Order: sequence, then C-alpha cells, then structure tokens
Amino acid sequence: MEKLRIEYETDSALMARAKALSGAADDAAARLYEGGLDFTGWVNYAARFPEAELSRIEKTAAEIAGKCDALVVIGIGGSYLGARAALSFIDREDSKSPGVWPEAFFAGFNLSGTYHQRLLRELRNRELCVIVISKSGGTLEPSAAFAVFKGLLIEKYGREEACRRIYAVTDAKSGKLKAEADQNGYESFVLPSDIGGRYSVLSPVGLLPIAAAGIDIRQMLAGAAGAEAPELRAFAKEFACVRAALEQEKVVETFAYFDPSVEDFAGWAQQLFGESEGKDGRGALPVAVSFSRDLHSLGQFFQDGRQIFYETMLFVENPTLDITIQNEDAADVSGRSYSEFNRAVLEGVTRAHRAAQIPIIRVLIPQNSAYAFGQLVYVFELCCAVTGLLMGVNPFDQPGVEAYKKGMLEYLAAAK
Amino acid sequence: MEKLRIEYETDSALMARAKALSGAADDAAARLYEGGLDFTGWVNYAARFPEAELSRIEKTAAEIAGKCDALVVIGIGGSYLGARAALSFIDREDSKSPGVWPEAFFAGFNLSGTYHQRLLRELRNRELCVIVISKSGGTLEPSAAFAVFKGLLIEKYGREEACRRIYAVTDAKSGKLKAEADQNGYESFVLPSDIGGRYSVLSPVGLLPIAAAGIDIRQMLAGAAGAEAPELRAFAKEFACVRAALEQEKVVETFAYFDPSVEDFAGWAQQLFGESEGKDGRGALPVAVSFSRDLHSLGQFFQDGRQIFYETMLFVENPTLDITIQNEDAADVSGRSYSEFNRAVLEGVTRAHRAAQIPIIRVLIPQNSAYAFGQLVYVFELCCAVTGLLMGVNPFDQPGVEAYKKGMLEYLAAAK
Repeated sequence: MEKLRIEYETDSALMARAKALSGAADDAAARLYEGGLDFTGWVNYAARFPEAELSRIEKTAAEIAGKCDALVVIGIGGSYLGARAALSFIDREDSKSPGVWPEAFFAGFNLSGTYHQRLLRELRNRELCVIVISKSGGTLEPSAAFAVFKGLLIEKYGREEACRRIYAVTDAKSGKLKAEADQNGYESFVLPSDIGGRYSVLSPVGLLPIAAAGIDIRQMLAGAAGAEAPELRAFAKEFACVRAALEQEKVVETFAYFDPSVEDFAGWAQQLFGESEGKDGRGALPVAVSFSRDLHSLGQFFQDGRQIFYETMLFVENPTLDITIQNEDAADVSGRSYSEFNRAVLEGVTRAHRAAQIPIIRVLIPQNSAYAFGQLVYVFELCCAVTGLLMGVNPFDQPGVEAYKKGMLEYLAAAK
Repeated sequence: MEKLRIEYETDSALMARAKALSGAADDAAARLYEGGLDFTGWVNYAARFPEAELSRIEKTAAEIAGKCDALVVIGIGGSYLGARAALSFIDREDSKSPGVWPEAFFAGFNLSGTYHQRLLRELRNRELCVIVISKSGGTLEPSAAFAVFKGLLIEKYGREEACRRIYAVTDAKSGKLKAEADQNGYESFVLPSDIGGRYSVLSPVGLLPIAAAGIDIRQMLAGAAGAEAPELRAFAKEFACVRAALEQEKVVETFAYFDPSVEDFAGWAQQLFGESEGKDGRGALPVAVSFSRDLHSLGQFFQDGRQIFYETMLFVENPTLDITIQNEDAADVSGRSYSEFNRAVLEGVTRAHRAAQIPIIRVLIPQNSAYAFGQLVYVFELCCAVTGLLMGVNPFDQPGVEAYKKGMLEYLAAAK
C-alpha cells in the first residue's frame, strides 16, 4: 500500500519557525489524544468503531441499493461535504461491485428553487431513497429539501412505503428529526454527540451515504486507523506547525487540486479549516483552486498580484484512470500520457510559484482509493485541530455561523 | 423587460471615496469608448456584430444540432469559461426549441486522465461533434484533449466525416489550429485579434457553443447593446469606482451567488478580474462562494475571522423555476416558496455581514435569461476595464500566465 506524503517547498527561515513550534504542537496533540477536550470523539473513533454499528451500516447500504437507483442525500455543511468529497474522490473501480449501487444526489445545502426543481425533474421517474442528515432537524435548508423529497416519495410510493425509503442520521436523544424518525419508524443512525459536523465524515454521517454508493468503508476506516496511524500523526503535526507559522504571515491558503476528483475534498477542507481557525480575527481564508483551469484564470494574480497567500497542493500520484495519447496527427502530444503531463503541471507550477516566493505545501496522495481517502481525512483533521490549538483558538466551535440564520429568520418573520 | 440593478451596502465614507474617483472614471471610460487602447474591440462589438457572421453562427449551430446529441467544447481560460457560464445560467426554457439541442461537455482545461477517461466513457456511444477554441492551437491542455477527441471522431466516423464534425474558432491568419483547419476544411470562425480571451464571450468564441446549445444569441447581444446600454455604462462606472476604492483597503473580493446556476458566471468573473487587475502587486483576489452552502463552511470565517475581504453578491430576483412547498408534515415550511426563502438568505446575510462591517455590493439580476446574461457580461467587462485603468494597471494583458507554462515545458523536455 503506497503512502501519503507531504513535502514543503518554502524558505528555510519558515521551516525554522515551524520547528520552533514543535514542543507546543506535542502538547496540543497530547491534549487531543488524552481526552479532556470537548468534541474530540473523532480522534480515535475510526479505531474504536463498534462492529455492530458498522455491520448495520453495511446492511442498510445493501438494502438501499436493492430498493433504488437514485439516492438523495439531504444535508448542509458537515452533514454533506464529507460524503460528497468521498464520492467524487474514490474511483468506482474501488467499489465493492461496480454498477449495482445507486447514483447519489445531494440536496438541502441551498434555497434555490432552480436547483431543486431541476433535480426533481431528473429524479421524478427514478427509483428513490432518501438519507436525511441533521443534528437538530431544524435548519431551514435541509428542512425545506426534506419536505420536498418526502412529498415526492409519498406521491410515488404512498406513506407507508415512503417511510421505509427514508433513512435518518441524527442526534441520539433530542431534536425534531429524532422525534419524527421515532414516530415514523425510519431506520436511524446516531450522529455522535462528541463529534462536530466538520469532523464527522468517518462517523455514520459520512459512512452511511458512502457505503450506500458502494464504497468499502472498512478500507476507509483502515486508512485512518491502520498500521500507519503513528506516521500519519507525525505528518499531521509537522503540517500543523508549518500552517501555524504561515498563518502569521499570509491571509489566504489556496487548496490547489490538479484533478476534478479532488475538487470536493478541497471543499470539505475549506469548511474544516475555515470554521476551525477563522475566528477572533484570525485564520487564513481557505480557497479551492483547480489546475490547470485556474492557472488560466487566477494564475496571473498568483504570479504577479498581491502576495497574500500560501498554497497547499493536492496531487494524486498514481490515478487509476489514465490515457496515453495515440494520434498521428498530433506529434507533439502523441505517445505521452495524461499522468505525465499532469505531473509536469505540478512541477511547472511549483517552479514558477517558488520563483515568485510563494510558500508551498505539497500533499501527495498515492491513489483515488478508499484507503487513501481515510488517510487524507485523518491527517487533515488532526492537522486542523493542532493548528487551532497552536493559534490559541478553539478549533471545535463555530459561533459565527448563527449570525446569518438570525438575520434570515428575522426577515422571514417580518415578511410573513 | 426587467433591468439589472446594483446596490451598495457600505459605509458613507467609502461611497465618498468612490465618488471622488468619478472624474477619473469618466476619463478612463472615454479612453475605452473612443479607441486608442489596444484590445478594446469588445467595447462596442455586440452593437456592430456583422449580420453575415451572426447568421453563419446560427446556421452552423443548427447544423451541429442536426448531427449530434453531445457536443464537446475544447478550450481553456477565456476560450471556455464564458460559454460555460452562459449554459449554466440561462434556463433552457429560454432556448429556441427545448429538447432538440445537444448537451454540451467541456474538455481541455486540465491534464487529468481521470477527468478525460470518465468523459470518454460517457460519450463513446453518443453522436458527437467537437468545437475547438484556441488562438494559437499550441496550448498543451486543449491540444491534448483535441488529440483525444479527434481520435475518437475518426474511430467512430472515419477521417472524412470526422472533419465535418469538427468546428474551429481560431486566429484569422496564423497558428497551428488555423493551419490544420484550412488543410482539413473545418468550418471555422475568427477569434477577433482586438479582443482578449476573457473579454470574448460575446464574440464567436462564446457565441458558437452557446448557439449550438440552443440559446438565442441575438437576445444575448441585445442585452449588451440594446436600449439600456447608456444605463449599463453608468452602472459599470459606479461599480468600478466603488471597487477601485475598495481595492485600496481589502485584499479579497468574494463573488457570492445564491443559486448554482450562477456558479460558472462567478468563475468567469474570477478570470476577468483576476487577470485584469492582479498584477504589479495589486488587485483583490477574486473568490467564488456558494450560499447557503458556504455559510455553513466559510460563514464562520466571514463573520469572525480576518476582515480582509469585501463581498459582491450575485442574486437572481425572479428565477423561472421555483417551488412552493406543500407538505402537511412540515408546517414550518409548507406554503412558502424557495424564492421567498432565498431572498431571506440574501437579506439575512446582508444584515449579518453589515453588522461585521463587511462592505457589500449587491448585483440584482432580473432573471435567468439570455438577455440578462448579455447585460451582466457587458456591465462586468466595462467595470473591470475601468477599475484597472483607475488602479493604473493594464487591464488587457496577462504576462504572469506564461510562468507556469515555461516551468511545465522545461520539466517535460527534461523528462523526455
């Protein structure tokens, strides 16, 4: 099994500043591993995942696959970004039996009638199941989508069968969704109370939809909790020290990916770092950028604009899918492969951006597998928590998210 | 026909600084309208579009629609972002005869084997045509994709018919693609030499693929060059003054959209502003964000993190598609519409972000129509050019884009 690697292309002064944080990072990591902090259930969750719960997730996933060809996953923020990241990243070649699993669609993360109307049209004639993921059941965006898709299920299948096609991941005890699930008998899973949304992809929140799409979730958990765990922890610590040193001099962190399969992982990382570190006037704004595309849109700014950012590159070293170009009309590209060209983009950008003094972190991902995804998630979560503790902020709260909801509800109340 | 509007939610000191730039903005606009600057062919191109060329684009679009159900559009940067933005934004209800136009797929903007292999699998059994858009024909990303898809056309249809299914938009006189198009007899259109890529969506670069997807390009041109043009110019001037004032105090501009149909327009705007203004150590980094989604991922940072940004909101006021929720189980949302809820997000975020002192520009787009798209593009292009001239940078060059290509080609030469 090939391993994740992280390389640093920066000047030596920065690495010395990062190294000076090493002792403090050890202390922060110890606070995570030894307990005593709230919302750190994710730290060793993959290793202690109850076998009975894991089997029930797999059994439910198979049941969902037997019932439908289109699966609507309803959630917002941490209740959907992780599953979406996994489904985009992991090659279906890595799934258990290719072709027999439902296609997943996401809803409930915006209030666009256009988006949901287009989705309804596409799904109206498909066989459907719904997974609804919400701690409280009270957030407006997923509530609205759930009302719409539950309505469609009832219309298609009648109320009784509709309830058998709805699966819930919610709080163990309280909340609107919990009450409704109990009343209607939805098959339900618990969103652990000591794990926050953005750290929850390796809990039932992520695992149920990921398994229902045919991905081997045991491989994913093994990536996060397998034999390499001590090495991953060391990677995460160094990554955190470099990021904490960079946070003092740069205000933006770009997550640059070279393959659209990594786009949604970058979106997940934006939430992870943005919500964990962006507080008390601190943090670097996390921005996802797509290469080569954005080298032809933002490349000019990166090279010659304001030097406000550092760059975390996400590169898949050995993608399962590749193309060797064979075309006698195109002598300049014929006989060479896409993976060779994409490596050249990585190296070319690294050179050009180093020449412009941009600090670069290169995360080299071995392949588009469930195992590699588990590794990647675990390193990023640990790195994020340690960076936050080094910065002196609480990496597990998100008090600022309530502000827009308050404004929105005030507007709605006045408009009623 | 409803009109585009732009509102400013900022403090009065900023608006006073913007107003002080008014005279300079008039001078800058005069330089644009009266000629004398290079690469300003786009300024009145929509108004002076040659009828014969427009008819040939429409005729070719109908021919493409008759031959295929899947259209591969190959380009990078300005050769694809504009068409993609239009196709995502404009409702097909606004197209000429819904249902009979090919589905468009984009390729050639990255070097991912995974992306192109997945696309090949999806398209292998479809009826295909290809539009290839490149000034030189020498950029690696579109060259590689063109080699692959031309190979597929030859495999499916033989060489002669393949050449009848390839359409080119390229330089009038020189370059590799021009030579190949002449030799093989591809139907070809000219990329005007006085219009740069990022200002080219209302030229054949954008119009050919947009027309081939069934959109009324005359409506789009009318939006940019119709009766409201003087008013649009006034909007663009004020928008530019406010942005130039903000550039002196903020380093990031977020383009926040409330509907996924606007996502690709925001991507187009990122290139427009990033390449035009990001130079000489200047410019605000343009970042696209999706609401509500990113309020649950970056909202925390926006509210309480580093105050480094201002916000340009893109909101569609009267979307064609809407849903009124009818579900007796969901009393809190039943009877209300998505468009009402989405307006509440706009107003809620505006309140919350104003309370956090974030300067806000609100671009209110009347609807998802070809006409509104034309208006929007024209206002943004004018605004961008005037802002650049106010900042004292050249808004029409992009010298920094070459740096990564040089590094990439050096790496490839060494690896050969």
